[in-house]
Amino acid sequence: MRIARFSIDGNVAFGAVEGEGPPGSTDGLVLDIIKGIPFADFELSGTKVPLSKVRLLPPVLPNKVVAFGRNYAEHAKELGNEVPDAPFAFFKPSTSVIGHGDEIAYPSFSEELHHEAELAVVIGRMCREVPRERVKDVIFGYTCANDVTARDVQRREKQWARAKGFDSSCPLGPWVETGLDLAAIAEGITIQCTVNGRQRQLGRTSEMIHPIEDLIVNITEAMTLLPGDVILTGTPAGVGPLGVGDEVAVSIEGIGTLTNKVIKRG
Amino acid sequence: MRIARFSIDGNVAFGAVEGEGPPGSTDGLVLDIIKGIPFADFELSGTKVPLSKVRLLPPVLPNKVVAFGRNYAEHAKELGNEVPDAPFAFFKPSTSVIGHGDEIAYPSFSEELHHEAELAVVIGRMCREVPRERVKDVIFGYTCANDVTARDVQRREKQWARAKGFDSSCPLGPWVETGLDLAAIAEGITIQCTVNGRQRQLGRTSEMIHPIEDLIVNITEAMTLLPGDVILTGTPAGVGPLGVGDEVAVSIEGIGTLTNKVIKRG
Repeated sequence: MRIARFSIDGNVAFGAVEGEGPPGSTDGLVLDIIKGIPFADFELSGTKVPLSKVRLLPPVLPNKVVAFGRNYAEHAKELGNEVPDAPFAFFKPSTSVIGHGDEIAYPSFSEELHHEAELAVVIGRMCREVPRERVKDVIFGYTCANDVTARDVQRREKQWARAKGFDSSCPLGPWVETGLDLAAIAEGITIQCTVNGRQRQLGRTSEMIHPIEDLIVNITEAMTLLPGDVILTGTPAGVGPLGVGDEVAVSIEGIGTLTNKVIKRG
Repeated sequence: MRIARFSIDGNVAFGAVEGEGPPGSTDGLVLDIIKGIPFADFELSGTKVPLSKVRLLPPVLPNKVVAFGRNYAEHAKELGNEVPDAPFAFFKPSTSVIGHGDEIAYPSFSEELHHEAELAVVIGRMCREVPRERVKDVIFGYTCANDVTARDVQRREKQWARAKGFDSSCPLGPWVETGLDLAAIAEGITIQCTVNGRQRQLGRTSEMIHPIEDLIVNITEAMTLLPGDVILTGTPAGVGPLGVGDEVAVSIEGIGTLTNKVIKRG
């Protein structure tokens, strides 16, 4: 099931996405509004609204986004970095999150903005010290993410709070797909990034150095995850520059397409 | 005014702390319960309760904690690091925050836990791109912080999410002092850390390389701060190990003393 979060008549609601439109488009899709909240018991109301009539919001409002670095070998190499033995994580704050169709504001303190297409895991329940075999139980679903990075600032500043945590640096969406499973991801689904329709990144989740199970074991060894928290699983090779006016799209097989335009900060 | 957050009869409340007890003790202090929330208009109810009868909570529940590294030259040097030209920041997540009297759980993945006493700034209003001369307007008050660090993990992992973001790694408290000002901090107030009553760290805020104004300009250039967000301003020299059973206390002149005991994770 694809679960979207959206605003309608000034209210925030969740809905199940029904129908199939053209790839990357929301044309022809309908939302069946959810009664209750998706992380607990819920049912579909049967009240339907065309997706074109609502504004999509980030599909979750994470308390924290935990992102793993250099989890695809070809990407580590393209930036001249070694492939790390163990996973390492950094945070993107909740204030960096935007949704499908929202604008990425080019930060004033950077001259080298990069896209990084990533598979995002949405956590479904409060958890800590999750054993490998229980990882599947704490996952609510998956969405597309763009770990937008001020590459010049990342090189200059030892820790990446500003380089990867600025407002609008974490597009998530367009919705959460709850039907994917870890086996399919291990076997490999395609992650693609295009800028103005031209392909920039292309990879498969089977290329991850540390699989999702290891990432969640690693981070929950240290800290509690809350429902709605998001784990970014690393970006494949092909990262590159974004300029004002560019339209960047992250497409993941079986999930959908997250599109955002880059604007000058007003 | 000293504003504490506490639980009483199962409810969470804020109160103004009245009276003076012995240094580092809460004996003899009384809370005047606040009507409304401290970040907006509020008044004192006149209903008073002894502080010894309540459980203090973290004085704020930050959406994010932004911590600045190496902001005291002597501390940078003691770890063999260069003093950075520009400030650099990292995040501690909300799940790392505990209050005065709460326990620091020694993480299972570290064998070298360190204390880092720091002055914490509590943000009072939503803000972005704050000009230097307006910094004072976005500050609600100040509290004591301990940027508890798994030093061995910090050396091993390129980004510090696990080393500085594990559960209970961010003690804050005992309350927020709203009466301190930037001029007094620039002139210098004393920050002290003791372990089992013995002095480990001693510094003055006048030794900060980048003053609070610069830190807030730097971070709000990139991201929005929300009421209750916390900025950690760096630790003076003297950091050192914590072991299970230790009692660590951070005392800041004009604020108070934040005390926490280190326990083995159950």
